Amino acid sequence: METKRRSVVLHSRPGGSPQINHFALVEDEIPALRNGEVLTQTLWLSLDPYMRGRMDDVVSYAPSVKLGEPMTGETVGQVIASKHAGFKPGEIVVGARGWQSHIVSGGDDLLVLSGSAPHSAYLGVLGMPGATAYAGMKQIGEPKAGETVVVSAASGAVGSVAGQLARRAGARVVGVAGGENKCRFVEDELGFDTCIDYRAVTDLSAALRDVCPDGIDVYYENVGGELQHAVFNQMNPFGRLIMCGMVGEYNDLVLRPGPNLRDTFIKRLRIQGFIVLDRKENFTEWRELAEPWVAEGSLRYLEHVVVGMENAPAAFIDLLRGTHLGKVVVRVADALDKAACA
Amino acid sequence: METKRRSVVLHSRPGGSPQINHFALVEDEIPALRNGEVLTQTLWLSLDPYMRGRMDDVVSYAPSVKLGEPMTGETVGQVIASKHAGFKPGEIVVGARGWQSHIVSGGDDLLVLSGSAPHSAYLGVLGMPGATAYAGMKQIGEPKAGETVVVSAASGAVGSVAGQLARRAGARVVGVAGGENKCRFVEDELGFDTCIDYRAVTDLSAALRDVCPDGIDVYYENVGGELQHAVFNQMNPFGRLIMCGMVGEYNDLVLRPGPNLRDTFIKRLRIQGFIVLDRKENFTEWRELAEPWVAEGSLRYLEHVVVGMENAPAAFIDLLRGTHLGKVVVRVADALDKAACA
Repeated sequence: METKRRSVVLHSRPGGSPQINHFALVEDEIPALRNGEVLTQTLWLSLDPYMRGRMDDVVSYAPSVKLGEPMTGETVGQVIASKHAGFKPGEIVVGARGWQSHIVSGGDDLLVLSGSAPHSAYLGVLGMPGATAYAGMKQIGEPKAGETVVVSAASGAVGSVAGQLARRAGARVVGVAGGENKCRFVEDELGFDTCIDYRAVTDLSAALRDVCPDGIDVYYENVGGELQHAVFNQMNPFGRLIMCGMVGEYNDLVLRPGPNLRDTFIKRLRIQGFIVLDRKENFTEWRELAEPWVAEGSLRYLEHVVVGMENAPAAFIDLLRGTHLGKVVVRVADALDKAACA
Repeated sequence: METKRRSVVLHSRPGGSPQINHFALVEDEIPALRNGEVLTQTLWLSLDPYMRGRMDDVVSYAPSVKLGEPMTGETVGQVIASKHAGFKPGEIVVGARGWQSHIVSGGDDLLVLSGSAPHSAYLGVLGMPGATAYAGMKQIGEPKAGETVVVSAASGAVGSVAGQLARRAGARVVGVAGGENKCRFVEDELGFDTCIDYRAVTDLSAALRDVCPDGIDVYYENVGGELQHAVFNQMNPFGRLIMCGMVGEYNDLVLRPGPNLRDTFIKRLRIQGFIVLDRKENFTEWRELAEPWVAEGSLRYLEHVVVGMENAPAAFIDLLRGTHLGKVVVRVADALDKAACA
């Protein structure tokens, strides 16, 4: 059995856009297991925009990653040793956190996978990003038939699910994404009514007005920036803004001005932020709801697979730039036969 | 019986701060009543910040006042003639709208007053401003015992009730008002825990931090401007911003920047606007709840009485400047004995 563990640690804080040298790949011994602990070998590592926030030394809803410590991130792993009654070698689990080849866990966050979907799907469409789309749409957006819903970062892990949920509710769904490739995917594969390529338009407000002639009822916010202002000005009375993320502003050193809030009462808008982790049931509810949809092919998703944990930093930098199409996952290792884990 | 009607009409649109010459006092004949109509003589006219919005020719939740037409505004009146089965001469009614000495109404908006409070109270603490405070606190703020609630325009018609409601819920209530006089009233008469005189402090953020050492859970927004930004930055996780009005920005020709919305998801904030009229039950629920409180003296209020409808424009301009202490009402006429109305 392998005795070395590889980790991608935070080497220095970016203070702007992350670069490769803000990360470091380190190797050490896999720690000995204590009673109540599980050792997993990471098969898949998820890369998500929220991780950018963990690189800064600021107060947020979750603690920062400390310098020299592994970057945080959800994984799918295989149990290779267990001193925990709830886990057996060979089992596939989701939930351990860390950009690491091997993770020692107390088991509290781990869920043994029993569903039929591919393992990596539990990091995307059936995992945290999918549950995030579900929670925001259900608890804040509540789209109704005939309403117009705009989704930013529409081809991304969260946006792709958010838009499909709004379509299921009978809403007209407009995606916004960067690049013709992404827009074609959003329209043709995900089935959004239309998608604006923000890189190809000179006047984002006009482009939005063109495809939202009846105004906007629900906005699923993932990006911030110019789009946020353009959407805000076109919201309908009683509109809802689901504040999920603003990836386009995460590298800013100074906060940009937001929209003037007068319209909140003139139009009775609701602007509400949320974090999927605040309500644990979001994960289980969503998995139960969405697993059959994934199995039957009615909930579509696409993954961008990066091979090798050593490539995670570059892939993460690209993710923040919007380079990839689909949910970004890192393939760290292949699953072993159960027999080999015993 | 009087045959002439006096009206204050919108003479021209301000495009900035309203001046006296944007209004005109006109006189015409009281129109003949048709079947189903009621004629009231106005006893009290309410002046409220929202009326500033009606002077502009922009799309809002209610139509603008047209040039040459009477300014809009709630009144308490006495029925002096009726061709409507629901109203008898001599009755006191609340709800007819207009800066007019006599108002002809179809009766739909009129409510016959039967409570024991002074008539003018039905324009303030028991009327639209009181119901507005109630609706915002109940449907958006939901203050809990031990939470910190900040109320802007704390001595005003809405703020004074909003803060007292939060106190009843067991919250710690911080008012913000302009002037020592107002702050003394807010603390001593209304019973807020403390009140910041924003005109007397050089650093509003620091002053706020001093009196909100545990952060802010609920903000009742009436003013906008610098205070909105200072409060926004000190909101606690899961905080609620009740967006009721921004009177400090109503005369702006260009919208000011709002706060960057990143904190909405980092802190899971809810920023929500509302208008009391959207839910008719707000008025009746509030009146039933608050009438006993006013009668027993546990819900406090203060009125600034202006005498004579011809003085309404100047009083309204002063109201926007925050000159007055308490709810501004205009005394237009005295009630007659019922016999005199028959």
